[in-house]
Amino acid sequence: MTTAQANRETKTVSQTSAVHAKAIELGKHALRMTDASGSGHQSTALSIAHIVVELMYREMRYDPGNPWNGASDRLVLSIGHAVPIVYAAYADLGGAVGKTEAEKTLLKVEDLQTLRELGSVLDGHPNPAEGVPFFDAATGSLGQGLSVAAGLALAARLDKIDKRIFCVIGDGESREGQIWEAADFIVDHKLSNVTAIFSCNGHGQADSVSQQQSADAIEKKMAAFNWDVISVDGHDPVALSEALDRANASDKPTAIVAKTVKGWGVDSIIGKNFHGKPLSGEGLATALKDLDATGEKLGAIPAQFNTPNATHEVKAEAHKTVELPPFEAALKRAGLDKELDQKKLATRVAYGAALIAAGDVDPRIVAVDGDVSNSTFANMFQKEHGDRFFECKIAEQNMITVAAGLAAGGKIPFASSFAKFLARAVDQIDMAAISRANIKIVGSHSGVSLAADGPSQMSLSDVAYFRSMSRADNGRGEPVCRTFHPSDAVSAYRCVELMATVPGMCFMRTHRPAAPFLYPFDERFELDGCKQLREGTNLTIASSGYMVHMALRVADKLAESGIACNVFDAYTFPMDASPILDAARKSGGAILTVEDNFIGGLHAELAEAAAMAGDVRVVGMTVNKLPKSAKTPDEVFGYVGVGLDDILAKAREIAGKK
Amino acid sequence: MTTAQANRETKTVSQTSAVHAKAIELGKHALRMTDASGSGHQSTALSIAHIVVELMYREMRYDPGNPWNGASDRLVLSIGHAVPIVYAAYADLGGAVGKTEAEKTLLKVEDLQTLRELGSVLDGHPNPAEGVPFFDAATGSLGQGLSVAAGLALAARLDKIDKRIFCVIGDGESREGQIWEAADFIVDHKLSNVTAIFSCNGHGQADSVSQQQSADAIEKKMAAFNWDVISVDGHDPVALSEALDRANASDKPTAIVAKTVKGWGVDSIIGKNFHGKPLSGEGLATALKDLDATGEKLGAIPAQFNTPNATHEVKAEAHKTVELPPFEAALKRAGLDKELDQKKLATRVAYGAALIAAGDVDPRIVAVDGDVSNSTFANMFQKEHGDRFFECKIAEQNMITVAAGLAAGGKIPFASSFAKFLARAVDQIDMAAISRANIKIVGSHSGVSLAADGPSQMSLSDVAYFRSMSRADNGRGEPVCRTFHPSDAVSAYRCVELMATVPGMCFMRTHRPAAPFLYPFDERFELDGCKQLREGTNLTIASSGYMVHMALRVADKLAESGIACNVFDAYTFPMDASPILDAARKSGGAILTVEDNFIGGLHAELAEAAAMAGDVRVVGMTVNKLPKSAKTPDEVFGYVGVGLDDILAKAREIAGKK
Repeated sequence: MTTAQANRETKTVSQTSAVHAKAIELGKHALRMTDASGSGHQSTALSIAHIVVELMYREMRYDPGNPWNGASDRLVLSIGHAVPIVYAAYADLGGAVGKTEAEKTLLKVEDLQTLRELGSVLDGHPNPAEGVPFFDAATGSLGQGLSVAAGLALAARLDKIDKRIFCVIGDGESREGQIWEAADFIVDHKLSNVTAIFSCNGHGQADSVSQQQSADAIEKKMAAFNWDVISVDGHDPVALSEALDRANASDKPTAIVAKTVKGWGVDSIIGKNFHGKPLSGEGLATALKDLDATGEKLGAIPAQFNTPNATHEVKAEAHKTVELPPFEAALKRAGLDKELDQKKLATRVAYGAALIAAGDVDPRIVAVDGDVSNSTFANMFQKEHGDRFFECKIAEQNMITVAAGLAAGGKIPFASSFAKFLARAVDQIDMAAISRANIKIVGSHSGVSLAADGPSQMSLSDVAYFRSMSRADNGRGEPVCRTFHPSDAVSAYRCVELMATVPGMCFMRTHRPAAPFLYPFDERFELDGCKQLREGTNLTIASSGYMVHMALRVADKLAESGIACNVFDAYTFPMDASPILDAARKSGGAILTVEDNFIGGLHAELAEAAAMAGDVRVVGMTVNKLPKSAKTPDEVFGYVGVGLDDILAKAREIAGKK
Repeated sequence: MTTAQANRETKTVSQTSAVHAKAIELGKHALRMTDASGSGHQSTALSIAHIVVELMYREMRYDPGNPWNGASDRLVLSIGHAVPIVYAAYADLGGAVGKTEAEKTLLKVEDLQTLRELGSVLDGHPNPAEGVPFFDAATGSLGQGLSVAAGLALAARLDKIDKRIFCVIGDGESREGQIWEAADFIVDHKLSNVTAIFSCNGHGQADSVSQQQSADAIEKKMAAFNWDVISVDGHDPVALSEALDRANASDKPTAIVAKTVKGWGVDSIIGKNFHGKPLSGEGLATALKDLDATGEKLGAIPAQFNTPNATHEVKAEAHKTVELPPFEAALKRAGLDKELDQKKLATRVAYGAALIAAGDVDPRIVAVDGDVSNSTFANMFQKEHGDRFFECKIAEQNMITVAAGLAAGGKIPFASSFAKFLARAVDQIDMAAISRANIKIVGSHSGVSLAADGPSQMSLSDVAYFRSMSRADNGRGEPVCRTFHPSDAVSAYRCVELMATVPGMCFMRTHRPAAPFLYPFDERFELDGCKQLREGTNLTIASSGYMVHMALRVADKLAESGIACNVFDAYTFPMDASPILDAARKSGGAILTVEDNFIGGLHAELAEAAAMAGDVRVVGMTVNKLPKSAKTPDEVFGYVGVGLDDILAKAREIAGKK
């Protein structure tokens, strides 16, 4: 007997009166908690009351006291602002809360009154990291939940876990394009264990939803996207229960399109487009009475539910170091013998070789890419570890959030695209950061060195964006995001090793052109570190990525005219800047930074450190105008103000200024 | 007779043999120019050869010599990497190029060989700002063209111009969610003058396209999205011509789903998934022969086309200053008399009042919002200027690119959402920057002061991202993007005036909480400026936005203990930092910066300036950990390390360090 069948056994014949009673009980909690918090979305919460009862009390196979069980069915609340009713159900069920299992306590109904308080685990929107592990990912920025569900489903399939993922989505929310990216992805990968439930209450925040987001329209769309579609009254327990049974039996991903009522059961607010405003005093009293009246009308009678549990337990793996083989071995393994001899390789190719090696030593390593795997070289991993590679096609938002879902499922996903196209998914990266998702983001063709394709393919703000997350703590003693910006194949290889090992979000920036090796094959790289490649007493130059090679060319030229430079490779943020500052103090007191991106990167990093110390000057050279196409990197560098001659002139000027 | 009818008259009976001949001629150019450039996507270009001929030679009403005519039909090449064939047609037609009409020259066929050269107007992807005004927006990051088309269509409707917008989209590209956001938007706003043409060649970059992006799937999807759908053989001139006629006659937006062949006409590359690799030498010779053979097979015979012209001419307006009425008058006009008396108002509400005033004085001002207009207060503009307000619903990517299209149509669009949700559209903002789109982006609820809703609604990297664009030139003597971060209603009001007047992209950051006025009603604000709000000799504090009020609270507390502070309001980037540095030199030589965002903002801005000068220290306080929900702003500030006591302690420490 499959657990799915077991599930059917435990699910007793429909308990209409009991479901109504529970929906009303939870609705009252939602009204009271949002009153207590002075904010929150009780009317949206009420619209999914029956969906939540059917899922959390009757359908899902899980133990509320053990949300850490990876074998449990999961609920992804894409419509995050409806969370009060889920909190209410979870408290009613005595769900376990705590940032770690060690700190586990059981949520009580009284705790609901702490909604949105600084000291409460009950954040304004689902936020597992604050202590509600029932959720796998933070939601609240709309349209992302279905992608999380897809990632969870993929992880479950890899681990051969029979597990269902339910995703509750709002009608207005389905306007977000990411929902449709996820819908395609879930069909591509035949993730039939994903059930999407659309709550169609017809109301957005500012106004009613468009007819394009009506229940009928969503049905037509999901059918066109090749999903099984079931339409139900979202407040009819029998209809919902039967729909969930059909979804369970279907061998295709199923969408349940539920017509719901915003503020269900509370006649005094229905139709008033009551959004995010708490009721209180008389309004609250009236609303509670309304719910009682609704209960009487429907013949609600409280009763026990027999919530099915998962058939077995799967524990999350403890943190483990990922150690890669020697560099040469990995390049040979990847068929890069020629490049190894020539000592020249693009960092993006080194990434591919490193990813193969990481996949060899650790089964948790998986990769996603957006139809550019032959440019990012994620396709090297695909060839060797095809079962752990997931093609997301041209849909970067879904790709990043799928990675967050895979991470929630215990995997270590590497997500790659052109760095420029990752800008498509900044909000998704922000949400993954709030989820403390252990994802590794890799942007190829960064900066301007790709030249010919032009600015639509060039990432110029990526360094500023990712660096912005490098000095804030994620609450677990790690930066919100670490950035790696390797200059050569050896460092790129070791940066992948660091990313795979360090818990939390990381970003690596790779470049299109091949570049000579700068490090011995056995060179080691540290978190927060930097490397000195040249020593000199006249000037200190700091750079990263491809521009390190420009800095070295400049240093060599300057050496000819008797100017000796320190050259530093600043391969990561956050970075301990003291070695660079100390070197500067012994070389004229000035640092020249050279970057192939807009401001907010290395110049800012060193200027912040230097301005704190107060005894070192920093002069920054960054991309000073919007680029255009050109045949060669050097032409583009010159066009945007960081050409060899520009850097030479600036370096001479500073060195002269000693 | 409508111009649409006129158009039909000028369009002669199908010229199958001539269209084939022209498609082959242009295909040869595409092969030769990508060979000359050493890169480019000739195979994708060939797949749209017939579509381009039908549009640019037979369907579109325009004068290739006068792309500046706002009354012309427009082509948006969403599949930007197919551009070589459009360049070929444009050169063949003697199209006008030049960054301005004053610099106008006519493109010649010989010029095609300069594709992707630094000195060429023929950038790797469509890039109007580099000198091809035939295009209205830069494309190349996929999935954005249909939103541009929507914006152009809205602008044309506002100006009562009978104009058709054609958008060519790739099949793989239609995986991008933004396409579906745009499809909804175009139906919502009944933009029947938009025709989407999907080129379904079945090939992506890394692999074939998913069955979810097959021609059949796209037909089903577009029908479900309530578009008229016509399926054709994309290399059959008669079918294409009739489809365009039907689209023209339809009163609904029409999608033409064209089955095409990647590398059409070149048997030696068809099916070889030849993407972005140039042919050369023998490969090129063979390919050219293949095309000749194809021509013979099809009975291609060159002939003249009678390209229809627009019925009249519409010139772009010259740049004009937008001058707002006095602050009090504007607040009264907006019904904010009470707030005027209480001298307390949230910057987001001041934005609404300013937008009404701007709309009063300038008909070019339009606004778009993403279902949060009652939070951003764009709804104030909607109430007064409803015909110029466009609701985009919950779809920020489409919203930003629609704004870029509206700007290309001569409007000054203000696009608003929560600052956090604008992170959804970073790539779209990047592309708008490359287009030099004159759009004004407004992010409300920025930083952490919204408190209760929690981190999923808080923007923390927005300042670093937008500042990154503030020091690079857009090629027209303006920053790529200016950032405004007003601290009170008076400055917010004047920042809107500055944004409306200055040409180019701007971003304004507003906050949720109400805040007291800090400036006299007649205060003026300058580009690149900052304001000194307190004078003192012991310490200099610089801040912006809501945190300026924290800085003032700190200064007042310090004054009690005899520490006199300078307090600066740094309301814009780029900023001339010298007043702040000078003040610091006279007050102990140190600056304390206070921000409600991650690093990369004001601290970086002043540290860069100070580290250049070398004689001023800067200590930065920014959000030092991921926030969570709390009841009040002060609680959150304390939680993330920028609470009143944190700032006081740091200020005392620095002041003591004199």
